[in-house]
Amino acid sequence: MQLRIPGPTPCPPQALEAMGRQMMNHRGKEFGEILRSTTERLKQAFQTKGDVLLLTASGTGGMEAAIVNTLSPGDKVLSISNGFFGERFGDIAQAYSAEVIRLAFEWGRPVDPDAVEKALSGHSDIKAVLVVHNETSTGMTNQLEEISAVVRKFGRLLLVDAISSLGCINLPTDDWHCDVVVTASQKGWMVPPGLAMVGVSERAWRAHAQAKMPRYYWDFGKAKSLLEKWQTPWTPAVSIFYALNVTLDLMLGEGLDNVFARHARVAEVTRNGVNSLGLSLFVDEKYSSNTVTAVNASDKIDVPELVRVLRDEHEVIISGGQGKISGKIFRIGHLGLVCEDDIKAVLEALRKALPQAEKG
Amino acid sequence: MQLRIPGPTPCPPQALEAMGRQMMNHRGKEFGEILRSTTERLKQAFQTKGDVLLLTASGTGGMEAAIVNTLSPGDKVLSISNGFFGERFGDIAQAYSAEVIRLAFEWGRPVDPDAVEKALSGHSDIKAVLVVHNETSTGMTNQLEEISAVVRKFGRLLLVDAISSLGCINLPTDDWHCDVVVTASQKGWMVPPGLAMVGVSERAWRAHAQAKMPRYYWDFGKAKSLLEKWQTPWTPAVSIFYALNVTLDLMLGEGLDNVFARHARVAEVTRNGVNSLGLSLFVDEKYSSNTVTAVNASDKIDVPELVRVLRDEHEVIISGGQGKISGKIFRIGHLGLVCEDDIKAVLEALRKALPQAEKG
Repeated sequence: MQLRIPGPTPCPPQALEAMGRQMMNHRGKEFGEILRSTTERLKQAFQTKGDVLLLTASGTGGMEAAIVNTLSPGDKVLSISNGFFGERFGDIAQAYSAEVIRLAFEWGRPVDPDAVEKALSGHSDIKAVLVVHNETSTGMTNQLEEISAVVRKFGRLLLVDAISSLGCINLPTDDWHCDVVVTASQKGWMVPPGLAMVGVSERAWRAHAQAKMPRYYWDFGKAKSLLEKWQTPWTPAVSIFYALNVTLDLMLGEGLDNVFARHARVAEVTRNGVNSLGLSLFVDEKYSSNTVTAVNASDKIDVPELVRVLRDEHEVIISGGQGKISGKIFRIGHLGLVCEDDIKAVLEALRKALPQAEKG
Repeated sequence: MQLRIPGPTPCPPQALEAMGRQMMNHRGKEFGEILRSTTERLKQAFQTKGDVLLLTASGTGGMEAAIVNTLSPGDKVLSISNGFFGERFGDIAQAYSAEVIRLAFEWGRPVDPDAVEKALSGHSDIKAVLVVHNETSTGMTNQLEEISAVVRKFGRLLLVDAISSLGCINLPTDDWHCDVVVTASQKGWMVPPGLAMVGVSERAWRAHAQAKMPRYYWDFGKAKSLLEKWQTPWTPAVSIFYALNVTLDLMLGEGLDNVFARHARVAEVTRNGVNSLGLSLFVDEKYSSNTVTAVNASDKIDVPELVRVLRDEHEVIISGGQGKISGKIFRIGHLGLVCEDDIKAVLEALRKALPQAEKG
């Protein structure tokens, strides 16, 4: 079976074996050593000298944590969006009574850094900017380095949803001045869902000291103070740590640059293959993601039927569209444990399945 | 190795095997079937006709969810406590700006239902009562049925931390009129940490419709609406569902009453064994928990050294005390995958280790 959705991604056998390991005391020294080694290697993967905290939660929990740890009710935030997850980030801030200024681009259209600059110029009191690095819903990678340069010029906090990019697509957290960066275990990290990983900069810690949004479970301060004893404040998802400890070895053994290059190659194979089947990409190739490819479904294609035929007759699992582009696109995930041959198998299955999924 | 802390508990081999299963699409029909069967059998274990929602989080996340889904800032709540986790429940409510009336008993002393009645009489505007069913920090089971009867007389909401009791100690959710009941996967459910399970009554749903505390990730409404399609709003901890699906078979196959009786027997063996070693229990036997036993450390015993000797020389893992009774007690967990022979092995190890851990 080829599981080619944008997460959960397949796990390598070593990770699955680790998942089956018996429980241990999460406050004992053996688990402490696992937490230490995981945290230190995640810092390498995040390319940061700041903190990396591990929260037992889905990625959305990490996004919520980014907000409640750095902001106060009534704080003005600029929420940049061009897809489903960008909108979610703004929605979370709004749920916690931030004053959310929405800078919304059409789904699948690039973020215009000039528009960000204009928005920041127009609101002198914006505290933080929320942005998605890799928009899983549209297969678009936003130009984070350029956006970050603008945000930095205005001295605002930058909170980044990098859930489906970190560990797959270059994101130098410190060099790009990201204050909070969020990712999740079931994406490029090649382990099951259940952990959110969050990078926290010095500036984010200063914001944390002032931030008044209510928080308990998500509190970075509690996580940091327990991390000093190599513990977590709440019982962690021990098994996923076992697995992550193994896959970080694989990732750093391959070398981060090689991991990024592999994702770029595989994505190119995907895009070329899709084009050669006579299909078009949902986003301009200049911005296309190296972890997920969104393909326009022609009017003839029944997307739920295509997903079903691929699954039931060709052993390939892909995703349809989300939210308002549901039915209009389908998505092929190619992140984590993936090589060119995997994608060739997916493309071959797609070639066979497309005529089977034409509307009657 | 005997892992005898009050969670994570050991997992049976079938559960560990399930943990090692490859990922699948969390929005596909196969996972939907797992979610359906898990949810329906959890309802049996919760003894409820209400909803049971599964959140990817530690138990503390479930406690936070109980509060933010039923209350508004400024709401008055009565927080009953006689241990570490009772205090935590009140702290969470306070973090979200509830007005917390604390009814605190000495750690390890029983909750007096008359005092609860008096507190509720004295504050006509209390919205909810927070209580821990089984106080993991002291090895005490609170008299929830009696407390519930008082709360019901006043028509207040009852939010229950049953993290270390549900599935081990009888807790008929509906019969005892519990509005929100929280447990967590790494306790009696015999699977790794990463899932909180929350029972939600009709009355709790009515409170939810009015509740104004900020929430997004924890929102019961989102969880319920996705559950109607047998999905979760955020990517769930898939592996833990695989395992829970297996252990629920074991639990319901054994029969809930038999599971409760086994915990009662094992707890009695523990208490008798501890007494026969010349040690005393931290709580009155009338209230002692069937899932965790707290033992007074005499002045001669160095608790951290006892924990170390048991671990390094006798392959038994127990816990020390938490918070202000750290160093004064040690705790033996006996929940989930446990039988009399396990406890006999622990007691034998303890007999040997005690003289080794005397202060110099």
